[in-house]
Amino acid sequence: MRENDATPKSEQAIARTLTALAFDSAGLVPAIAQQHDSGEVLMMAWMNLEAVELTLRTGQVCYFSRSRNALWRKGESSEQTQRLVDFRIDCDGDTILLLVDQQGVACHTGRRNCFFNAVRDDDLEIIAEVEIDPKDLYGK
Amino acid sequence: MRENDATPKSEQAIARTLTALAFDSAGLVPAIAQQHDSGEVLMMAWMNLEAVELTLRTGQVCYFSRSRNALWRKGESSEQTQRLVDFRIDCDGDTILLLVDQQGVACHTGRRNCFFNAVRDDDLEIIAEVEIDPKDLYGK
Repeated sequence: MRENDATPKSEQAIARTLTALAFDSAGLVPAIAQQHDSGEVLMMAWMNLEAVELTLRTGQVCYFSRSRNALWRKGESSEQTQRLVDFRIDCDGDTILLLVDQQGVACHTGRRNCFFNAVRDDDLEIIAEVEIDPKDLYGK
Repeated sequence: MRENDATPKSEQAIARTLTALAFDSAGLVPAIAQQHDSGEVLMMAWMNLEAVELTLRTGQVCYFSRSRNALWRKGESSEQTQRLVDFRIDCDGDTILLLVDQQGVACHTGRRNCFFNAVRDDDLEIIAEVEIDPKDLYGK
């Protein structure tokens, strides 16, 4: 996987990126976070313009929380941060792929990634273990 | 990556899956397609209830096209189909991760995946080659 380690980005690159993105009617665009070396898909969340800007400027991933209606600096409560390794935009400009280096676990349930419910023969099955007790992530 | 090769799914598994999904106000849920063996993130598109059902029932990925407002059987025009290898749902039930076996290219531009625009020093850069001329995909 080809990567770029030069973060934070220049103002020019940030401006170009913001222009290329097609934010939806709510001003948001979905962002997929993938662990840069293993290829594991960690989570999907949303970014607004400010979250994109902050992520590119700081090199630390920041989303927009639709439930809290506020910027969500990933790891601000849990310390499970995501360092940006590469920032990619799809063909239509309406989805972001973030290659990241995940500190600890991405999921609020304490699992490494959020996609732990798998369709099996007659049911959904949980296929990943809790690695960190959520109480230890958010109980502080 | 742990996988399941038993497709199509049982009616019971399909019913459980549909119940577990949190469709948005438009009746849609985003679905990320990932190549099952390489880990490459291929694309993101949307599914409605019927698309989920068809995908699980047939083992061939079907999305919902927001621009055409219709079911989009991936590959119906281009022959670049996606065979379902595993169907996963995230912690909140509002995002799907499809592990697939992509026939040919996933992107309508003729590139293997849609995420070929990468933020580089002062600009966005195209980091993937066109593998199949779009005229050959859709010109028939």
